Amino acid sequence: MTGADALVGSLADAGVDACFANPGTSEMHLVQALDREPRVRSVLCLFEGVATGAADGYARIACRPAMTLLHLGPGYANAAANVHNARKARSPMINVVGEHATHHRRFDAPLSSDIETLVRPTSKWIGSVEHPDQAGRLAIDALEASMMAPCGPVSLVLPADSAWIEGGARAPARPVPPTPQVPIQRVSANAEAVRGARKAVLYVDGAALWGEGPAVLARLAATGVRVVAPTFPARWTRGAGVFQPDRMYYFAELAVADLSGCDVMVLAGAPQPVGFFAYPGRPSVVLPEGCRTVELSTPAEDTLAALRALADALGAPDTGPVEAGALPDRPQGASSPATIGASIARHLPHDAIISDDAVTAGLPIFLATRGAARHDWLCLTGGAIGQGLPLAVGTAVAAPHRRTIALTGDGAAMYTLQALWTMARERLPVVTVVCANHSYRVLNIELARTGAGNPGPTAARMLSLDGPNLDWVKLAEGQGVEALRTDTAEGFDDAFARAVAMDRPVVIEVAT
Amino acid sequence: MTGADALVGSLADAGVDACFANPGTSEMHLVQALDREPRVRSVLCLFEGVATGAADGYARIACRPAMTLLHLGPGYANAAANVHNARKARSPMINVVGEHATHHRRFDAPLSSDIETLVRPTSKWIGSVEHPDQAGRLAIDALEASMMAPCGPVSLVLPADSAWIEGGARAPARPVPPTPQVPIQRVSANAEAVRGARKAVLYVDGAALWGEGPAVLARLAATGVRVVAPTFPARWTRGAGVFQPDRMYYFAELAVADLSGCDVMVLAGAPQPVGFFAYPGRPSVVLPEGCRTVELSTPAEDTLAALRALADALGAPDTGPVEAGALPDRPQGASSPATIGASIARHLPHDAIISDDAVTAGLPIFLATRGAARHDWLCLTGGAIGQGLPLAVGTAVAAPHRRTIALTGDGAAMYTLQALWTMARERLPVVTVVCANHSYRVLNIELARTGAGNPGPTAARMLSLDGPNLDWVKLAEGQGVEALRTDTAEGFDDAFARAVAMDRPVVIEVAT
Repeated sequence: MTGADALVGSLADAGVDACFANPGTSEMHLVQALDREPRVRSVLCLFEGVATGAADGYARIACRPAMTLLHLGPGYANAAANVHNARKARSPMINVVGEHATHHRRFDAPLSSDIETLVRPTSKWIGSVEHPDQAGRLAIDALEASMMAPCGPVSLVLPADSAWIEGGARAPARPVPPTPQVPIQRVSANAEAVRGARKAVLYVDGAALWGEGPAVLARLAATGVRVVAPTFPARWTRGAGVFQPDRMYYFAELAVADLSGCDVMVLAGAPQPVGFFAYPGRPSVVLPEGCRTVELSTPAEDTLAALRALADALGAPDTGPVEAGALPDRPQGASSPATIGASIARHLPHDAIISDDAVTAGLPIFLATRGAARHDWLCLTGGAIGQGLPLAVGTAVAAPHRRTIALTGDGAAMYTLQALWTMARERLPVVTVVCANHSYRVLNIELARTGAGNPGPTAARMLSLDGPNLDWVKLAEGQGVEALRTDTAEGFDDAFARAVAMDRPVVIEVAT
Repeated sequence: MTGADALVGSLADAGVDACFANPGTSEMHLVQALDREPRVRSVLCLFEGVATGAADGYARIACRPAMTLLHLGPGYANAAANVHNARKARSPMINVVGEHATHHRRFDAPLSSDIETLVRPTSKWIGSVEHPDQAGRLAIDALEASMMAPCGPVSLVLPADSAWIEGGARAPARPVPPTPQVPIQRVSANAEAVRGARKAVLYVDGAALWGEGPAVLARLAATGVRVVAPTFPARWTRGAGVFQPDRMYYFAELAVADLSGCDVMVLAGAPQPVGFFAYPGRPSVVLPEGCRTVELSTPAEDTLAALRALADALGAPDTGPVEAGALPDRPQGASSPATIGASIARHLPHDAIISDDAVTAGLPIFLATRGAARHDWLCLTGGAIGQGLPLAVGTAVAAPHRRTIALTGDGAAMYTLQALWTMARERLPVVTVVCANHSYRVLNIELARTGAGNPGPTAARMLSLDGPNLDWVKLAEGQGVEALRTDTAEGFDDAFARAVAMDRPVVIEVAT
């Protein structure tokens, strides 16, 4: 058995069933090992950032890692922005990075680079298979490291000779070590802080925001605690019948105003909130004057169990408030983020998955879908736009019976538009909504906020995407995906209703 | 004066006149500083790999660095594959990487990352502006580091507060320290080795391959030395009236066979040749049995002067052989890399620039253009495909009166197709030739060579780009670039002849 077979076989034995790949010469034996392993679905991506974004989306829904297959240092570099997003999302992911044969590494061949340094900022664990007999064991080590709380991306470097030489052996899967529990004394101390507060806020991130989590949050809300989620959580379950926490404002001064009067903030699976960016003369930490923080749990601990214990300690009822689920009327007139949101709310299938990379258009759509059918909303976690379409590839692979909607802006979509081709090839029924405003609109807002002044002609040209406008119908059709364009609310309403009923990917470009 | 103004102004004073940019919130003051600096042409790129590939192309033609403007760690990550290529090309380049304000860095904001580690593998110098009063000086240090032989990309990190705070001061430009000369004793020793050789080969890279370099190489060839260039030099001047060295074979065993019988290899501005990849049972170093190497110069020394001295020491004549310059007949039948090459040779304008990222199609086109009008041929230096279109953006900005031709494969072009939009916006008259074979054809060749065996169905699907085919007419038109498709030699011949006469970008998709 080659090292490549041992690596792929060990991961397959441990339940890894998807590989998002962009291979090169040094990965040919890995490709052949994947060919021999029917339990792993291999998905070709034409750019590496699609592969890692897809693995992130897969992990957020499947709650276990996919593997990726990347071509040496430059392949990882292309992949790294979406690994950054995945690291912030705490998504498990096994990035298998091909490398020159061990005896070839010391030469300055064109593709030689320092892979271990390159992967360090985005990897919670790094391993290198120096001999094929390590391939199985390191694959299982990588999987375990990726799954230990807090989860995250890991990098497993595979020199070509370690892949091609015989002498590999599969390693048995190991159970993931249990997530550390929060000691009861800490729960009690938090309960006391809440009881003694004039106005307590629970700031919560992680697993408590999705699945069974919101029901626990609802119990806490029923005791009078205000529950607030971060601006950009990795996943939250929301919609009709689900408790919906408030969402932290993006702009720090709005967040501080919104929280004003709170004297205690309980941190549950989340560090203290900080501004997305710094601005001249404004503080980084988002806490109102006189508010102290108490820590219930870190992201490395079992936050959901701690919240259940806190609810019990506070004598919370068994249930709490949930979203009623009213749907908006058919919108009319020119299309806008608000009308798009209304249409999505009207036609969203039950248990849909929404991948949100729509920047300025995202918030109005989020607000409008509060009462839509229950769904999972996945945010841009690391601020590196270009996450949305790749993430949708991965969620559609992880959950073929759920409908994925990718929300994106025209600026954001350009970073990783190659994801559309993979949707076409794999017949993933993703509905991609490109909110086209022909500008980096968020930067026009931020320019004023940073105090940099009104844009002159050169600056305005750096923030605008017109001259020429991007044509998303052609960019989609050029990759084999059906597409249409609309600039009316009614046109989008009809198009979206049709698109969610189709068995293949569709792109809708809509003016905003 | 803000730190941003000091940085941009100092670079402009020192002659930097182009900035390839993809800005974000943390770079707003840099954008405004560029707005106030009319000497710098700001070029918006919709993906960071386009910006750095363009800066590489700019440097290869202008012989001085452009600046880029990148958005924190993820922006650099997206840029890094083409910085890798630029590092291998020894292209000067100043990557200005925005960062959170110094007081915001310690928080785990979404876009926080370890930028200094991330940039290390691809940067020959790294600086961080911790206070605006350092901005001007560090900008000049960065420029100098980038220009000192061997040239290369440098990274200048600019925290947002260092950009926005007043207190910056421009720093004066400094002359670049002269490139170290090769001592005459070493030249004499090399001349002696050549004279004593049964069959001597000069293996040469760098500045000796372009401009005045080939005339010096021709003198050496006239003495009976065989002159060989690397497989993928950053730039070489070739065509009618120019001496053309042989090109090292890509596959190591072919290269060794080609060099067989040589007993002395003189290394001039090049390390010893090594295989692009390693293969089972094959050596890494590309040297025939019994051949020894002698070093004339390193990439950090003045190779061209050393070669002149070597020619003198060998008593070389003042001139040597040059390419005669015969043009092929109009090709007929189905299009192929050979017919494409013939048409390019027939219609290539004088002093054109060819950016070659066409992988398997590149070599036949290269061979067919040997006798074309004089031109500069720029290779993929670091093996990270996706260089070709961005490089063409930069060469067209650097040399507006020369015609740029971008040769690419459909697989390679997908990595950085966003470059087409910048060509449209800036009205860069680049002729992009997409050689469409609907596969990663090189990998089908490499799969057999690595001994991984015949591809099964999963492997074949990982190496093929069909199902669906990419439509480059739509992908170009979607970004505002005119395009057409042909599958005949005559159709391409007509289309290429028309395209090189146009004042705007054109894409030709041609079947291969």
